[in-house]
Amino acid sequence: MTDIIIHTLDWVPDMPRGFVRDLRLRWACEEAGLPYEIRTIAFDDRATNHLDRQPFGQVPFLTDGDIEMFESGACLLHLARKSEKLMPRDAKGEAETVEWIFAALNSVEMVSVPWWFLGLSGDNNEALSGWMDMRLAHIEQVLRGREWLAAGRFTAADLIMADVLRIPKVRDYGDRPATEAYVERIADRPAFKKAYADQMAHFAAADEARAMVD
Amino acid sequence: MTDIIIHTLDWVPDMPRGFVRDLRLRWACEEAGLPYEIRTIAFDDRATNHLDRQPFGQVPFLTDGDIEMFESGACLLHLARKSEKLMPRDAKGEAETVEWIFAALNSVEMVSVPWWFLGLSGDNNEALSGWMDMRLAHIEQVLRGREWLAAGRFTAADLIMADVLRIPKVRDYGDRPATEAYVERIADRPAFKKAYADQMAHFAAADEARAMVD
Repeated sequence: MTDIIIHTLDWVPDMPRGFVRDLRLRWACEEAGLPYEIRTIAFDDRATNHLDRQPFGQVPFLTDGDIEMFESGACLLHLARKSEKLMPRDAKGEAETVEWIFAALNSVEMVSVPWWFLGLSGDNNEALSGWMDMRLAHIEQVLRGREWLAAGRFTAADLIMADVLRIPKVRDYGDRPATEAYVERIADRPAFKKAYADQMAHFAAADEARAMVD
Repeated sequence: MTDIIIHTLDWVPDMPRGFVRDLRLRWACEEAGLPYEIRTIAFDDRATNHLDRQPFGQVPFLTDGDIEMFESGACLLHLARKSEKLMPRDAKGEAETVEWIFAALNSVEMVSVPWWFLGLSGDNNEALSGWMDMRLAHIEQVLRGREWLAAGRFTAADLIMADVLRIPKVRDYGDRPATEAYVERIADRPAFKKAYADQMAHFAAADEARAMVD
């Protein structure tokens, strides 16, 4: 029996495919060998059709028995507590993993997503670009010195940081070889490839279903 | 003996006073009755003088025995695990607290800080303002229905959400009475007032020390 249910959208346009954040949770479950199911929320009414389960109208959210959670970072941490493959069990290893999960989301993604978001509308805001550049320089400095962010091994912190860094990668890292190699190395993991392929297949199947209705 | 040491800057200019994020950790310790000490990093060389302890050159970071952590969200979660006053001990109450801590940082602050940061340079970016408005509308909808974010009581989630919402408050909420009342109610807690007053006093004392050197 599968207790873990990852909720995502039933369909999205081409652009966000491969980046919808259910990927983070699929990936974590694949790394940990945790069985899970995917269920969906309608894309068309997403602004209002699941506010009782995700108050910002976003995905993913997660069900695990009688626990229901939203926010990909919170769900990832929940999964990490279920498997040592995602987070060491000693206090120090856990502290390092947790601090880097927050760093990925609150120090890097807090800059990269607005930078990407404004870039979409052609606004290459100078202040945001400078801030992004500074964050990437700091990450590069860290990654020049080590292979993994936390506890000397792969953890959920690498999963989330690599996922966050995939957006800057789409645009431009500048000359940051350690970061480039890090993201490539992490995204080369079988669990990432499986999660990515599954998300792409999920949305491709939805295209076919839509085409049959039209 | 005090094990918890909160590291902040020895001085900052007037503007960020009352908003430097050591406040979140002081406040959490005050709520929980956890003894703590404050230690400082020099403001003047902050870009490079503590990168080995905080890889983005920021504050706060926390020492607790042999654990050292950065990222205010990660440190807050660490403190929350030490005291039921900050987070319930049952799985459901903990899940709700954790998801709302991440929501404050990754769904609200990820928009509010860039919005505030661009606003500083007079750039009232339309896309960011629209995004901010949408997030605040969602928060208002949640807070119209309940007094606390998680577990039907004050938790670390309210601490961090109210702190995050203090920045939009400085500029303009629009007509959002539930959010306004929520932030006022949370900021009226004795533990917040103590933490706020202590941070202001800390930087004021640094002014005097600087004046004596000059």
